[in-house]
Amino acid sequence: MSTPDIHGIIGYTITPFSADGEHLDLDALGQSIDRLVDSGVHAIAPLGSTGEGAYLSDLEWDRVCEFSIQHVAKRVPTVVSVSDLTTAKALRRARFAQAQGADVVMVLPASYWRLSEAEILAHYQAIGSSIQVPIMLYNNPATSGTDMSPELILRIFNAVENVTMVKESTGDIQRMHRLHVLGEGQVPFYNGCNPLALEAFAAGAKGWCTAAPNLIAPLNLELYAAILANDLERARALFYRQLPLLDFILKGGLPATIKAGLRNTGLEVGNPRLPVSPLDDGACKQLERLIAALS
Amino acid sequence: MSTPDIHGIIGYTITPFSADGEHLDLDALGQSIDRLVDSGVHAIAPLGSTGEGAYLSDLEWDRVCEFSIQHVAKRVPTVVSVSDLTTAKALRRARFAQAQGADVVMVLPASYWRLSEAEILAHYQAIGSSIQVPIMLYNNPATSGTDMSPELILRIFNAVENVTMVKESTGDIQRMHRLHVLGEGQVPFYNGCNPLALEAFAAGAKGWCTAAPNLIAPLNLELYAAILANDLERARALFYRQLPLLDFILKGGLPATIKAGLRNTGLEVGNPRLPVSPLDDGACKQLERLIAALS
Amino acid sequence: MSTPDIHGIIGYTITPFSADGEHLDLDALGQSIDRLVDSGVHAIAPLGSTGEGAYLSDLEWDRVCEFSIQHVAKRVPTVVSVSDLTTAKALRRARFAQAQGADVVMVLPASYWRLSEAEILAHYQAIGSSIQVPIMLYNNPATSGTDMSPELILRIFNAVENVTMVKESTGDIQRMHRLHVLGEGQVPFYNGCNPLALEAFAAGAKGWCTAAPNLIAPLNLELYAAILANDLERARALFYRQLPLLDFILKGGLPATIKAGLRNTGLEVGNPRLPVSPLDDGACKQLERLIAALS
Amino acid sequence: MSTPDIHGIIGYTITPFSADGEHLDLDALGQSIDRLVDSGVHAIAPLGSTGEGAYLSDLEWDRVCEFSIQHVAKRVPTVVSVSDLTTAKALRRARFAQAQGADVVMVLPASYWRLSEAEILAHYQAIGSSIQVPIMLYNNPATSGTDMSPELILRIFNAVENVTMVKESTGDIQRMHRLHVLGEGQVPFYNGCNPLALEAFAAGAKGWCTAAPNLIAPLNLELYAAILANDLERARALFYRQLPLLDFILKGGLPATIKAGLRNTGLEVGNPRLPVSPLDDGACKQLERLIAALS
Repeated sequence: MSTPDIHGIIGYTITPFSADGEHLDLDALGQSIDRLVDSGVHAIAPLGSTGEGAYLSDLEWDRVCEFSIQHVAKRVPTVVSVSDLTTAKALRRARFAQAQGADVVMVLPASYWRLSEAEILAHYQAIGSSIQVPIMLYNNPATSGTDMSPELILRIFNAVENVTMVKESTGDIQRMHRLHVLGEGQVPFYNGCNPLALEAFAAGAKGWCTAAPNLIAPLNLELYAAILANDLERARALFYRQLPLLDFILKGGLPATIKAGLRNTGLEVGNPRLPVSPLDDGACKQLERLIAALS
Repeated sequence: MSTPDIHGIIGYTITPFSADGEHLDLDALGQSIDRLVDSGVHAIAPLGSTGEGAYLSDLEWDRVCEFSIQHVAKRVPTVVSVSDLTTAKALRRARFAQAQGADVVMVLPASYWRLSEAEILAHYQAIGSSIQVPIMLYNNPATSGTDMSPELILRIFNAVENVTMVKESTGDIQRMHRLHVLGEGQVPFYNGCNPLALEAFAAGAKGWCTAAPNLIAPLNLELYAAILANDLERARALFYRQLPLLDFILKGGLPATIKAGLRNTGLEVGNPRLPVSPLDDGACKQLERLIAALS
Repeated sequence: MSTPDIHGIIGYTITPFSADGEHLDLDALGQSIDRLVDSGVHAIAPLGSTGEGAYLSDLEWDRVCEFSIQHVAKRVPTVVSVSDLTTAKALRRARFAQAQGADVVMVLPASYWRLSEAEILAHYQAIGSSIQVPIMLYNNPATSGTDMSPELILRIFNAVENVTMVKESTGDIQRMHRLHVLGEGQVPFYNGCNPLALEAFAAGAKGWCTAAPNLIAPLNLELYAAILANDLERARALFYRQLPLLDFILKGGLPATIKAGLRNTGLEVGNPRLPVSPLDDGACKQLERLIAALS
Repeated sequence: MSTPDIHGIIGYTITPFSADGEHLDLDALGQSIDRLVDSGVHAIAPLGSTGEGAYLSDLEWDRVCEFSIQHVAKRVPTVVSVSDLTTAKALRRARFAQAQGADVVMVLPASYWRLSEAEILAHYQAIGSSIQVPIMLYNNPATSGTDMSPELILRIFNAVENVTMVKESTGDIQRMHRLHVLGEGQVPFYNGCNPLALEAFAAGAKGWCTAAPNLIAPLNLELYAAILANDLERARALFYRQLPLLDFILKGGLPATIKAGLRNTGLEVGNPRLPVSPLDDGACKQLERLIAALS
């Protein structure tokens, strides 16, 4: 197994729907992927939280997975989120993504029942032993209800051979410190909390998993470039410049705000699926102003 | 619309699987329902948290719904949990349950994305306006990730005509006080937190939604009888007697502990679906001891 | 050592100040004590949270302690709060209270630094071994910053001979269950959370530690009488009747609300010490209305 | 009023006691101050959390305040913590510190009762209008029990003329972002959470308030120098090098760990005041090892 070099700005795609919300709009999906790739992001991540993966039928999920991988066409690596409520279903998605050519799959232990540490480990082992592509372990208790301590993450990292990357989205920088210290600097970690972007890079994060490049890719990429150039002052200035927008999309919810923002640019991608509502008019206006202030 | 009188002990059913976990075992489901009804519970609630409703395919869910309602056959009312991740899918389940003859449907605003109050209200309105049977609103942030304040619950109760009951599972007795005070005593509330059973009844809960009757129905029913008889001392003694078991099933997880407990009695109902694990041997032994101590 | 029978309604006294806030008003203190004793409370507790014990100089504290015990004059038992930030100072207060004739001293592990379990145990041991009167252990993380688990409380109860009572103020009824179960029914526990009064009695609390009797002693006493009479329905009705006031005094802060309430009845007791502010006019009016509604 | 330029490493002093814990050891205090000043820290902060200010009698507090300021003798600025449980006592301490020549006073709204925003603002106004030296507002809910939102901090900053600096110790980097954004970059903020040192500087903190220089001043100073040199990679390496020690002193409690560490170097400063215990033997050994690994 060769692990692709996942780093920098990992751009999360939305899943466009038709106006009635009932059908996928793959043409719009292709356009949104092209925009991201053309902007220079270092990887593309379909079907994550932003991609409403949890709200798709199995058929829809498969279609988006297949289309996205084919459309990216290896221009950059693809990181496909394959989480589902049962181990069997997550495993099926992981195999499907692998068969379509995904470079990495991302696994969040989403569950209805609170899982024990043994159950979480077994979940990763079951998936890991069924596929050959590398796995990005994903911790995000705010959406999954399951919080994995750095100690547990390390246990899984050491026990499951193809878990080779960690995405941390708690927003607690001490988790990253702990991963660095416990993992003796050998655990590649990625930040999934937008308003922590500056400090996660300061702490040594290898990449930033974010939907923001759908709207402001140049600023996201410049921040990463400043980090690579070891220019903290420039990174700080760039970060504070984009922070109001990062806060806004976190607070407004990623599918709703990114879809509204794309519509503003002329790319119609439909609304999020209910019960998630589209942004109301006031919020759309505020988003327009925030983005206008950045250009 | 005539609301059935839902009160007392509302027994939650498990969903039995075959040994390989892949198929439903409706025969075992029928037996477990008969046990509950014969024991004297006041209502039957299929497909709740205990029933692993979140882990079933749509086909499985429909089959369990239809079978359960037919098998109860109006011996007592049925309260069917119809939660799902999108409004459209929850609505489909609600209509299906109504068509099969459910007396009440229960709705938990399960979501991946944290919902706003407006989104939660719209979710209940969409479901409420599509069916005629009464709805039991269900608040359980520990599994759903969505916490509804008593104020929001009251708003929904007042805005959606067929939301006529509230199930509160936070375990915070002040929520029930608030529902009582804000609702001027007119909002029927039910307790879904097993170790709060005594105090919820003391505070005026109309019923106790619980999987415990699968294992210790007589004790659950006697506690309710003591409350009806206004005999607090007896209720307290009965409560403390069953509390160790109530704590155990809460801590061990309802599907895992109830399925293990039924197996102990000779009714094989399979294991929970992964990633939820069955009880290990030590926990099974502890469960046996706890139940033996009660008989 | 004979432990007095502390039970029922334990009334907490305020500490009256002169109009400029600088001097004690012992005459008003005597009157407020007489009101409580005459109303029928089962014990008097000076210098607790309500009594602003934390805000008094050592000289003031000693004076209030001595005066209160003498003025109660064994009409009912006195429970004197002797908490202070260092072990040495808490110990000095405990000895002083004992010398003045306190029947019980209450100890809250107030600290600036978060204490370890070993430090908390040592604190109780140091005080316990220096006095002969019984100690009521007091858990109230909201004011002390230190939360003692039921397990730790039991350890202290078993390790320190004169720790013979537990006051629980977290508002979490499961703590009381745990004290009952772990202590095999032999640990007398008291409730310090006003809006939990009904359920704490339902769970077996031996008494209710409260400042409310300064304003509505008859209702507090009737609730306890209903519990003694095993009349849950009456207890529930009485509880819900007084709950709005109980919520109000918890939310407004005990010294501020109780002092405002006493002023309304014609007993001028001054204001709380800054930074705690007296109730503003709107809140005073609301308090008047709440009390008027109860008479 | 001219505000001194408080920046960089602000070193917090311990308060040495005699072996029996009953008397101040001013000679040792002088030595510990000299060590800090000689090591190159940019300011000295007596009587903070590390200095056990909350555990001293008024006489002791005054003596330490006077001695520390005289001993520093303007070699660097002094920042004196003047917090106390009542406004009157905090105000007295603030005036005393000013009279002794403190350059800055630090105010934490320590309280027994949870304070409202209006009460906290009034507390700062009362102190601010009584002194002329600048005030560093200090937010540390873990020890004070009072959490001030960035919005409230800004209100106080704008309302009280001599509140000119903010020390944030929640460990939540988003608070610093918010102070920066709301304050339009004009609010100087300082970090009081040791394991957040790297990221706070990355986010623009002007200084680091820390007791660590008592033990590892060169490393603390080098981290700051790397930040000034805009060398993030070096800052990161230096931070991770000292992080295990920073975590240790946070977890072990500042007075206990710093006093143990100074003893290891031959400077006997006594133990913390009970109920805070000195480090046990195992922890002392671990501390020795951690420090040895850094030299």
